[in-house]
Amino acid sequence: MTTISKDNKVVTLINVFTVEPENQQRLVEMLVEATEKTMKNLPGFVSATIHRSADGVRVANYAQWRRCEDFEAMLKNPEATAHMKPIMEIAKFDAHLYEVVESMSVS
Amino acid sequence: MTTISKDNKVVTLINVFTVEPENQQRLVEMLVEATEKTMKNLPGFVSATIHRSADGVRVANYAQWRRCEDFEAMLKNPEATAHMKPIMEIAKFDAHLYEVVESMSVS
Repeated sequence: MTTISKDNKVVTLINVFTVEPENQQRLVEMLVEATEKTMKNLPGFVSATIHRSADGVRVANYAQWRRCEDFEAMLKNPEATAHMKPIMEIAKFDAHLYEVVESMSVS
Repeated sequence: MTTISKDNKVVTLINVFTVEPENQQRLVEMLVEATEKTMKNLPGFVSATIHRSADGVRVANYAQWRRCEDFEAMLKNPEATAHMKPIMEIAKFDAHLYEVVESMSVS
């Protein structure tokens, strides 16, 4: 289980992939495999949650890393980039780093 | 605290706002206020987490609603739309609904 709180000491990556509807399920599987086999074992990885959009043309990764530098090191890791290469052949992405300002939930 | 799990019975809204850097903090405050004063009290609201981007030009809302219909009812709620009107004057948004497929974290 993943938790979100402004007290968590993490940086958050929100990466929204766009994809042809016929490739949405395959993209989900590639991202899960990349996370399980590689990202999970890298220094500073905290969590990754893969989401499928209701409109069929998006997959979103909500990921937490300990520090910016851990995320940046992943981008240069050869095993990680090997996973990303075939993903980039079927999808476009829009990735940005965030910090949590406020998390509000029903009491 | 917000939790993410594929076993949570929720729909997830990921809404990425783009904004001029000088309005980023104001947008954060408007979204927090809208959530605290109105969204939180609407049927089916589960959580909303407001994120500030490191690049200064985005604010992301990661929100959970019990059902699609609850989210759609919020879009038609006069109190909710009154909050959204001034927000739309300073920001653009790209909102989509998702389901969680897989959540992976360090053990």
